[in-house]
Parts: sequence; C-alpha cells; structure tokens
Amino acid sequence: MQSGRKQPHAGTAGELAILRKIRARAAQSAHGGLRLGIGDDCALLRVGAGEELAVTTDLSISGRHFRLDWQTPESIGHRTLARGLSDLAAMGARPVATFLSLGLPAELVQIQQRNWVERFFDGFFALASAFQTPLAGGDLAESPMAVADIVLVGAVRRGKALLRSGARPGDLLYVTGTLGGAAAGLARLAQLAATAHAARPGSKRIAPLRIPGHLQPLLAPHLSPQPRIAQGLWLARRALSTAAIDLSDGLSTDLAHLCEESAVAAEVEATALPIHPGATLAQALNGGEDYELLFTAPPAARMPRSIAGVSITCIGRMVGPRKGRAQVALVTAQCRQPLTPRGWEHFS
Amino acid sequence: MQSGRKQPHAGTAGELAILRKIRARAAQSAHGGLRLGIGDDCALLRVGAGEELAVTTDLSISGRHFRLDWQTPESIGHRTLARGLSDLAAMGARPVATFLSLGLPAELVQIQQRNWVERFFDGFFALASAFQTPLAGGDLAESPMAVADIVLVGAVRRGKALLRSGARPGDLLYVTGTLGGAAAGLARLAQLAATAHAARPGSKRIAPLRIPGHLQPLLAPHLSPQPRIAQGLWLARRALSTAAIDLSDGLSTDLAHLCEESAVAAEVEATALPIHPGATLAQALNGGEDYELLFTAPPAARMPRSIAGVSITCIGRMVGPRKGRAQVALVTAQCRQPLTPRGWEHFS
Repeated sequence: MQSGRKQPHAGTAGELAILRKIRARAAQSAHGGLRLGIGDDCALLRVGAGEELAVTTDLSISGRHFRLDWQTPESIGHRTLARGLSDLAAMGARPVATFLSLGLPAELVQIQQRNWVERFFDGFFALASAFQTPLAGGDLAESPMAVADIVLVGAVRRGKALLRSGARPGDLLYVTGTLGGAAAGLARLAQLAATAHAARPGSKRIAPLRIPGHLQPLLAPHLSPQPRIAQGLWLARRALSTAAIDLSDGLSTDLAHLCEESAVAAEVEATALPIHPGATLAQALNGGEDYELLFTAPPAARMPRSIAGVSITCIGRMVGPRKGRAQVALVTAQCRQPLTPRGWEHFS
Repeated sequence: MQSGRKQPHAGTAGELAILRKIRARAAQSAHGGLRLGIGDDCALLRVGAGEELAVTTDLSISGRHFRLDWQTPESIGHRTLARGLSDLAAMGARPVATFLSLGLPAELVQIQQRNWVERFFDGFFALASAFQTPLAGGDLAESPMAVADIVLVGAVRRGKALLRSGARPGDLLYVTGTLGGAAAGLARLAQLAATAHAARPGSKRIAPLRIPGHLQPLLAPHLSPQPRIAQGLWLARRALSTAAIDLSDGLSTDLAHLCEESAVAAEVEATALPIHPGATLAQALNGGEDYELLFTAPPAARMPRSIAGVSITCIGRMVGPRKGRAQVALVTAQCRQPLTPRGWEHFS
C-alpha cells in the first residue's frame, strides 16, 4: 500500500483490486497533518512547531493476538488499530497518521463481493474515521499465516507527554472505564467457538464465528475496545497526571511496568476496582486488552468523576519501594497480598 | 521491544534476555532526534521546525523476501533495515529513527552464545550505526514463521522531498551505482544452496548456508546492499532532481511507477546501462533489490559523474506519453522495444 512497488508482487488480480480500493478509502481519510499519502516511497507528515512525535508499533499474529475462526474480520481490523491508538492515548498524544503492514494467506484476498480483507478494512476505517487517523501507507504481502503490524504516529506538545516514569510515592492511582470486560468477552467467545466447533467439527478454519445479536453488547469490550484518546489528551493538557500506561496486558502486569519505570511500589484497593459487569475479579486484575488508561496523580489534583463521558476511578495509591515487600499489593480492610503480574496471554 | 509490555508474553528466558540486550544496544545508538526510546508506550522524536516527516514501512516475510537457509542472519538484519533506509533515500530524507517488529519461531530465539537473533541484530545495528539511525522501538513476538516489519522515520526540509511525480518530458533519466548486482548475487546464492542441499539432503531448514570467503564480494550487492542516503540528501539539497524512486523491484517495474506518477513516458538507452560486473542485461533491467536511486533532472542541470563516491549514469530520457506507445521503451541505435515491468519476485 505504501507504494506501487508492492503491486507487481501481489500476484493476484484480487490483491491489485484490493490495493486500489484501500488507496481510494485511505485518500478519503486524509486530513491536515498528512501532506502525502499512499503512492510514493514514503508518506510525508507535518506536526506543529511546538510538538514532538509519538510513534508506536504493535505486531499482531494470527493464533496469538487474534483468531480468524473466532473474531469477525471487522473486529480484527478494529482491534489492530485500537492497539496502536491506545498507545498514543497513554502518552496523551493526538493521532496524526497510521501505517499498516498486512501479511495474509491467499484465500483471504480472493475476488468476492465482500471478502475477508474488505471486511477487515471496514472495521479498520470505521475506527480510523472516528479518531480522525488517516491511513498514510503500509505494505501488503501474501503470507502463509495472517500477520498485521500497526504503526501509529501521533503528536504531543513538547515536554507534555504522559510517561510511565513520573509516579511518586503518595500519588493516587486511577483507571478509566471498567476492567475485565475484554477478558470476560473473550471467555464467552471461547465457549461459543467450542459449541460451534462441536456442532460442525469439519468446519473450515478461517470461517469466522457467527455471533448472535443479543451477545454483541457482552462481547463488545473484547471485539471493539475503545482507545481512550480523549482522556489521554485531557490529562496531558491539564498536566494533572504524573505517569500513565494503557492496560493492554492486564492491570497486574501493566501496573508492575509503571512501578518499574517510576521506581515506586503500589497498593491496589480490591473493593475499589470498577469491575466490568459479568467479569470476575481475576479477569479485572489479569485480563488484558481492556485498553483503559491507568494513571497516577498527586493527591492534591482535583480529578473529575468522568472525562469525556468515561468514568474515572481511584483504585489505590503509590508507595515507596521497600525491600522484601511486593512491588504491587492487593489490599482489603482485612489483608494485604502481593499482586503478581499474570498478564493475559491473548490466545497463546 | 517498544515497551516492557511485551516481555511477560515472551515466555522464554531466552526471549527476555534478548530483549534486554536489544534495549541496551538500542540505547547506545540513541542520538539527538530521539527524545525517548524503548521502554514507554511510544517513542518520542523531534525534528527541526522547518522539516516534515518521511515515514515508510516494509514487511519482509520468510520464504518471500528472505530465506533462513540461504542468507546469514547478519545479512537478513542488514537487508531488513536497508529496504527502509532506501525508501528514505528516494525521498531525499535523513534518517531520524527506526522501529522493528519481529515475529520469530522459538528455535531462532534460544539461549546460546551466538544465536540467530543476536546475529540478526549484529547486521541490523552495523547498518543502523553507519547511517546514524537509532532503534527507537518495535515489537517481538513468537511466530510460526519469521516476519520482520521495518519502519523508518526520516526528516526532510518542507517542500524539498524528492517525489515520484515531478518528472517532465525532456528530463534526463539517471541511476546511481550499477544494476543487476543483487540479482546476479542471488542467482549465485541459489546455485550454492542447490549444491549444499545435494551434499546434505537431510540438513536442517534454518541452518544458514556457509558462504566461502572468495564469494563474499560477488554476493555483497545481494547480501549487504547500500542504501543511497547521501546521494538522496545531495539531490534534495541541490534541488536538481524533478523525480526519484529507489530500485527495489527492478528498473522495468520501478521506472513504470515513476512514469505512472509523473504521467510521462521514458526511453532507456540499452547501451548506456551501468550493468554490474557479472550480471546480465535481464538482471539489470528486471532484477530487484539493487537499492540504487533512479531519478530525473532537466537537461540543463549539471549532474556530476559521482555523488559521495557513487557513480551517476545517464541512462535515457523522459518523453511525453503517446497513445498506443509503450510507457517505457528500451532503445538501441537499431530498434525500439517496449520494456514491460518484470519486477523481481524476490524468492517467490
């Protein structure tokens, strides 16, 4: 997609047709920061004079980060982009452009009215459009297995990015939204898949699962997580937050990273956790892919109850590191126990 | 690599050790434009006030863009980065930072004194260091097959980037260096591999081929192509060139792209082509991965015979498009024939 260069390699007429369609859809999504999109050796981007760039990449591999037989193509497209946008959110950056490298088995790029790759881009562009993030380039290649590498380029006022490394003892610990919803949705999806597989044991590997309409809301936190861009921008603009990270791997794992980078410890109040309806405490603590923001702020900071329509909950506080004490502890009125990183292993 | 986030997923002690080593080596490669490297949700980069960003991504897939049983790990690391740097060269941009997403089979990430992934990074960092390009982030995941997605972020003076779209009828057509050397080297490598395979039919798939010392120079254009960053910067600074593209897919294919984007046609003088010693005319015309620059300039532009030690050769001229005439023609004193895009298919 980045360049015509890839087109002769594409091999199939389907792939060429897909590239033309992607390029046309990408052109529609262009906006101010994108000076030159798909079609040259590089894309050209501009940011403001007082801004610096935030750049992130996330590699998603079939069977590990997504499953062709569980998730709809739209969901895989949405989730691929959401992973990258969530990293920008955690820095308090605004999206400028995205780049996507996609390796796909030939059977997913066939000429059909509504084939897999087109539905993937339906989900991708719906989210890109919601967050005004133009697709500025990328690559498309045939591959024995499906892989997607997403690149996000964002902009943030110089020196104003939210880092993982600024938390201090005494800071309060906050989270946006609710926790465990994605893991609960994934568990439900696994049940559905097992039932469907039992009903048609000879089914094709890459036929996506059909999800009954009434289950869609329950599965939404897993199938179409919402990156917290507005909340990250709000926090960076107000300079209220001392450190931030996005919850991609689960609270227990991501909080450990934040503590590590800030050289502090943390205490999480078990009863304060905003557990997603239907999720378990374990899913809230260790379930990944909620893509909520976890952040710290001094106790004097006046934190609102919600930012841009998403609830903000204080779930604990940062403390000084002490030898022989766990870096992260889960506390209740009665007891205090170490909270070991048990980050969600996605599909592995 | 981008963030600690990936570490708990890595699974093996080897992978964790590799991540620590990569992070340490990347930290050594840091320079001015990189404000924050590996270890947070995003990397932070700065460019000059009068500059815009050039961004490119290139996906390399085992068996298609590289072969674990033919190329050394160092060469695969070098070539992965060279592909991206060459795109920056074609825009006349200076490298600011690179990001690498790597999916690797577990057997390539084992704990050994000198394992595959370490040797990959030897090749990668040697080239990164030569072009002052810090590794600012990326991702590492276990994958059934090897994939590498390289992202390059560069900077170029606003409005000064070399585009594919500026060539005009009457412009002369130039190329840096020599053509066909990479394809000739690859053909030689294929012979070596066939001989080696015949000698040990039961050999392991991912054992790289041993390349005799005396063959190294012959194979160098394929194993360690040199991106033409200095030449691209020179052309952009002097504003001599009207259009440029890098030769990743072969002259016949890449020239067609340049013509397409500039809405012009081209005539290539067969006898003027700087064919690499040992390469055939077909390899010079259609062999890809030479990573030389192909560019145009008005006839009045005084083009030097070499730029930064690399020869510059005029190989033809741009003409107006005419109905019923091939977009690209190969001409000699005696005849004129259409030059059809037959871009190199890498290993496919």
